Amino acid sequence: MALIVQKYGGSSVADAEKIKNVARRIAATKEKGNQVVVVVSAMGDTTDDLIKLAYQISSQPDARELDALVSTGELVSSTLLAMALEAIGCEAISLSGAQAGIRTDNAYRQARIVKVDSKRVAKELKAGNVVIVAGFQGITKDMDVTTLGRGASDLSAVALAGSLGAKVCERYTDVAGIYTADPRIVPDAIPLAEISYEEMLELATYGSKAVQPRAIELAELLGVPIRVASSFLNSPGTLIHGGESMEIRNKVRSIAHDLDVAKITVVGVPDRPGIAAALFEPLAKANISVDTIVQNTSINNITDLTFTVAKSQLEKAMTVVEPIAKSIGARECLSDSKLGKVSVIGTGMQNTPGYAARMFRVLSDKRINIQLISTSEIRITCIIEESQVVDAVRALHRAFELDTE
Amino acid sequence: MALIVQKYGGSSVADAEKIKNVARRIAATKEKGNQVVVVVSAMGDTTDDLIKLAYQISSQPDARELDALVSTGELVSSTLLAMALEAIGCEAISLSGAQAGIRTDNAYRQARIVKVDSKRVAKELKAGNVVIVAGFQGITKDMDVTTLGRGASDLSAVALAGSLGAKVCERYTDVAGIYTADPRIVPDAIPLAEISYEEMLELATYGSKAVQPRAIELAELLGVPIRVASSFLNSPGTLIHGGESMEIRNKVRSIAHDLDVAKITVVGVPDRPGIAAALFEPLAKANISVDTIVQNTSINNITDLTFTVAKSQLEKAMTVVEPIAKSIGARECLSDSKLGKVSVIGTGMQNTPGYAARMFRVLSDKRINIQLISTSEIRITCIIEESQVVDAVRALHRAFELDTE
Repeated sequence: MALIVQKYGGSSVADAEKIKNVARRIAATKEKGNQVVVVVSAMGDTTDDLIKLAYQISSQPDARELDALVSTGELVSSTLLAMALEAIGCEAISLSGAQAGIRTDNAYRQARIVKVDSKRVAKELKAGNVVIVAGFQGITKDMDVTTLGRGASDLSAVALAGSLGAKVCERYTDVAGIYTADPRIVPDAIPLAEISYEEMLELATYGSKAVQPRAIELAELLGVPIRVASSFLNSPGTLIHGGESMEIRNKVRSIAHDLDVAKITVVGVPDRPGIAAALFEPLAKANISVDTIVQNTSINNITDLTFTVAKSQLEKAMTVVEPIAKSIGARECLSDSKLGKVSVIGTGMQNTPGYAARMFRVLSDKRINIQLISTSEIRITCIIEESQVVDAVRALHRAFELDTE
Repeated sequence: MALIVQKYGGSSVADAEKIKNVARRIAATKEKGNQVVVVVSAMGDTTDDLIKLAYQISSQPDARELDALVSTGELVSSTLLAMALEAIGCEAISLSGAQAGIRTDNAYRQARIVKVDSKRVAKELKAGNVVIVAGFQGITKDMDVTTLGRGASDLSAVALAGSLGAKVCERYTDVAGIYTADPRIVPDAIPLAEISYEEMLELATYGSKAVQPRAIELAELLGVPIRVASSFLNSPGTLIHGGESMEIRNKVRSIAHDLDVAKITVVGVPDRPGIAAALFEPLAKANISVDTIVQNTSINNITDLTFTVAKSQLEKAMTVVEPIAKSIGARECLSDSKLGKVSVIGTGMQNTPGYAARMFRVLSDKRINIQLISTSEIRITCIIEESQVVDAVRALHRAFELDTE
């Protein structure tokens, strides 16, 4: 008898029929002799709808109230799913984040899990129940409800799987697994049978929305394998794990892309200590996530500093950066909101020269200009014009022979 | 500085604009130097919508899951109301039933309040907050969410008012107070300045939907005065209390009516001990509320037994009663679903003869046939044809001079 944690995303439980469909999948897993814990997201667009409602009431809704508000979405889907299971004769009980023992700090909207006290979950499993846990939420020591950040039902699932010693955390959504590139723009893209935590983390951070990055980090830390599969199909999907078979690969694994990129360049910055801190501390305080940062070699103690943000944050970022640029004696601030990002990812690239050169050659052959470059040990990312991203992904997918895996 | 508990019904918080309106009323009460605790129902038809969703999933949704589901309605309205208060500069915090310390037994759907541990509410009041409490819900000692029955946000408000020693529990809805009769059918009906707990309890039980009966009983027990007023007007409304000024009244106070009445008569019942129990125990087990029960004097040890139920429960009641009637040797079962109920209520009727006779005379003059009669010390109720109820209410309102109070 194995203990399996399953997580279903909002699109899998978007209406009554889909909830019944998910219930049948869960019951089938139970009937094979497994103990099953299910973490569920809010139905369809519920979370966005609740946030919209809050902004009709207040232009700056309080973070604690907002968390208590949006957490109701997962209470609704989890109770309905428990009812659907009971309706087909499968004993089930729903638990809120609080009841499931997901204890967090009090950083509302982005709370961190402090510990998982899974006593109640274990007791309900022992009683023969499928346990449905409301994802995305936890509770502070003062009994206040928190949420863990967008997409964090994945995090709830991995944390529970770790705490309960589950064999695997199965993550179901409307895509069939992790692909060699986004199948919507690369028809030849192939689902991968497996991928390492590190690769998946780069993929998730650089464009694939498949699994929340924090969930992947936690899964690696706790050694919980994650299976990503579709709740509408019966394919095995992709196993994200840290197994040894990864090491022998010598290849690029996947091409990631992201169309939500804007760039700010502070031109003519005096190159002295403390300048970067003077710029990026206020951005962090304004809750603006800065992505790639590039600083050129300085000439005559003057340098240019470029960084990227999400397009929706460009305007706010400029209002923060412009007065600072002025005060530190920079010449000007430039911005460009029509950019995209394409990344080549694979552990096989470690200690193997030539991948970057090959990527740049492919883009050059397509007459695609590279504006910024950033790399990690297992990833190369180029910032290019938004209109050229699709071409770039297709060309790279072909050049690195991902269609023939 | 007085402590005031206010309760707003679903129609008062049905949309963003109405929530903002309620927030302004609350802020005005706070600005007068009061401490304010607010109990709120779910927005508009939210509770019904959630129940409908549950029945799309399961024909017999589990009671525990249903409670966890519908309790989200009040979490949504309470958090939005707290946001609306903060948006106009009035410090506020929302609390779930659990956080507000509403402890109940585990009789889901109809839980009873075991105690109110108002520590957290008191702490938040001391910190200068308006405290918004989600009505209708509580929590068991095992941390499972319960609901207190339909309309039970009133009960939450009275229980909190009692626990906190509030000066008054103000109940706001879309009607201006307690009237001498339903103003929709009697245009001359007048709002009462005050009414006793006993009178209000009879009114609420016999047709007026103004305040939940259990809330009135609890208010009397705890000595909490309830003010019923409109959230859209600035009129003082009606004070429900147990003051002495009640005693000197010598009048009918209000005419109540109810159009939701069906009647079952078991004809030719052998008159021996245990027959009533044999009939009414199975009805109670089937969750059918029986209202008026009348048994005629038996002739030759044979009697007729008549009782009323809500129209929606007639069919179910007949399927329970018919086999029992057969087994106890009754002749037949008759039913009539086109009935209504009209009641004359007032503590002034106690120890004062002649009210019943006057009521029967008024109905007789209007050629209205009385099918059943039931009385309490302060109430006389006649069951009549549904189509004659409006005429009866108007005639009684005039005959007892309620339009000239």
